[in-house]
Amino acid sequence: MQRDPILLTPGPLTTTERTKRAMLRDWGSWDSSFIAVTTELRKQLLAIVHGEGSHVVVPLQGSGTFAVEAAVATIVPKDGHILVLDNGAYCKRLGRLSTLMGRLTTILGHAEDVPVSPTELDAALGADPSITHVGLIHCETGTGVLNPLQAIADVCARRGKGLIVDAMSSFAALPIDAREVRFDALVAASGKCLEGVPGMGFVFVRKDVIDGAAGHSHSLAMDLHDQHVYMEKTGQWRFTPPTHVVAALAEAVRQFVEEGGQPARGERYAANCAALVDGMKALGFVPFLKPEIQAPIIVTFHAPADPAYDFKRFYDAVKARGFILYPGKLTEVETFRVGCIGAIGPAEMKEAVAAIAGAVKDLGIAACSPQVFADGSLTRSARSH
Amino acid sequence: MQRDPILLTPGPLTTTERTKRAMLRDWGSWDSSFIAVTTELRKQLLAIVHGEGSHVVVPLQGSGTFAVEAAVATIVPKDGHILVLDNGAYCKRLGRLSTLMGRLTTILGHAEDVPVSPTELDAALGADPSITHVGLIHCETGTGVLNPLQAIADVCARRGKGLIVDAMSSFAALPIDAREVRFDALVAASGKCLEGVPGMGFVFVRKDVIDGAAGHSHSLAMDLHDQHVYMEKTGQWRFTPPTHVVAALAEAVRQFVEEGGQPARGERYAANCAALVDGMKALGFVPFLKPEIQAPIIVTFHAPADPAYDFKRFYDAVKARGFILYPGKLTEVETFRVGCIGAIGPAEMKEAVAAIAGAVKDLGIAACSPQVFADGSLTRSARSH
Repeated sequence: MQRDPILLTPGPLTTTERTKRAMLRDWGSWDSSFIAVTTELRKQLLAIVHGEGSHVVVPLQGSGTFAVEAAVATIVPKDGHILVLDNGAYCKRLGRLSTLMGRLTTILGHAEDVPVSPTELDAALGADPSITHVGLIHCETGTGVLNPLQAIADVCARRGKGLIVDAMSSFAALPIDAREVRFDALVAASGKCLEGVPGMGFVFVRKDVIDGAAGHSHSLAMDLHDQHVYMEKTGQWRFTPPTHVVAALAEAVRQFVEEGGQPARGERYAANCAALVDGMKALGFVPFLKPEIQAPIIVTFHAPADPAYDFKRFYDAVKARGFILYPGKLTEVETFRVGCIGAIGPAEMKEAVAAIAGAVKDLGIAACSPQVFADGSLTRSARSH
Repeated sequence: MQRDPILLTPGPLTTTERTKRAMLRDWGSWDSSFIAVTTELRKQLLAIVHGEGSHVVVPLQGSGTFAVEAAVATIVPKDGHILVLDNGAYCKRLGRLSTLMGRLTTILGHAEDVPVSPTELDAALGADPSITHVGLIHCETGTGVLNPLQAIADVCARRGKGLIVDAMSSFAALPIDAREVRFDALVAASGKCLEGVPGMGFVFVRKDVIDGAAGHSHSLAMDLHDQHVYMEKTGQWRFTPPTHVVAALAEAVRQFVEEGGQPARGERYAANCAALVDGMKALGFVPFLKPEIQAPIIVTFHAPADPAYDFKRFYDAVKARGFILYPGKLTEVETFRVGCIGAIGPAEMKEAVAAIAGAVKDLGIAACSPQVFADGSLTRSARSH
């Protein structure tokens, strides 16, 4: 059977035919039919975090990073001070964008193979009372590590600090309940675990926070307060929305609800992850993270030490078998990544492992085990700061 | 025949089935197949303005306004001073976003029913040597007026000023030759006259200008220099691209080339515009602009003075007949707009006029002629500053 390659990437990912076919119509962005699509979508999104009544959701054109930047710009006042909890590439990006827009930014560094620490955060907040906000990546896609959202939120609440959460790759797959986790803003995007196509982000904001956020943003396009006020008034987006992307996401969310919502989605991804990790271990591959901190979203594997391994050739050989891998994003140790998300199940993950086994054979890799350093470690010093 | 409504809106617009069907595939954003799509698209875009060798084109996620903001942020240094030529709503938006990001901004106001003036620009530049850049909307979609790009560019070149052109609704329909028109940056978007779907913009920048633009941007997401450098190095977008939108645009550009490029596209739109204006005049409607300054993109019509006219009911009646109109954007005079662009020809425009005639009948509008003010004018004082 000829089919398009399956994407084992953390967004864009493989979407259903039904989601893609929702893009076979042109919509007038001002028209009531499209306004109804946006309105229904926002209602459904808010329900996923149980934010009805307490929060608003503001969609934004562009990639997830645009929405993260917009959240910082809109929520953190110009004289605010944001502390970014850093254990990977997306944390560093958050720190960079807040610095660039002129917000005072402090980075609290952690190793890439451990979750960020609520205790260290508490100490840092105690040591510097000028900090007004904390930035957290829920699941750091650079490695796949799951950070302790609830515990971090509790520290922020106790200390009276605002919290901005990048939940890009966890939202809709892992439980996030706005009634229990206190955040100022939580950011996600269309082309991730909701299994839409990429092209828009959306930000959940507490009502009192959005109401106080007028005039914060350095950017017209990224001003979520302005977008929110306009959308509440008119039902429309301020600037041309990516109509086809919005329609695809609305269709994807309908399927998400039909599947059973977050619990069912999370269960499927956990089964995908287990099928992947079990299969890869059987081939001799070693995951980068300890299982207890591994989110079922994307798994980082050590590259084989075997000199026959070459990522480019390995990637091409797996692609020839119908699967698209993802490169590693660590600087100090050679890895590659495999996503567990998208409109696929454990059966496809087993096929993926078989494709990887075929690629190993093609390249003449005798053993898939990673390099072991002189000190016995696989990760060298992974301190990222 | 049951078909989706035809969009008589200036983007999103009606696209071909072939363009929409290009979205029925998921792409890995890092994969060589998708890199090839982006590379081909950029090459084709550059050829449209004859910018090979002299310019680069930098695509950006988001709506056209995101790309305009990114152009200003990237091209105008933090201590620069931009003069915005204002004869309509999109000019005002340009002035607002440059002010918000902290660039010194001067507005040179004109009436909404006349083109901006090269002579007035020349005088303004002579009077204030601190101005470093000029911002121009080529076709102001608020009214549909065509501004004199070549003459404005000539003034800027003679005065040694940078020029940023928002060519959102003119690019690919009206001739723009980078070998003759000297600009620093020229901005357009996917969902306009190239007849793609909305979700990305792109900016043509002169090579020496982009090379000198490092560190100007207040925004990570909107830094076109950073996007350019990364794309040149890797072939990839810095952040997740709207893969389906990009694929649709690439397919739309192939059809644009097959149709005969800008001359053929411009001719079809001119024929659309003529069919529309002739038909509407026969019904008694009066265009807002004089024919010699009317771009064949979008036509603003005066609302009928007849008390039976109500835009909402009129819109709904036309929609029931399969056509989506666009509201007016003028504050001082009641109007509505009809786009001439998209994957439609004069036959569809005649059908649209027939639909409008039907709506006029439905509403019981006896005459379509507009209100005439005491001074004999239709526009009242339309001075917009």
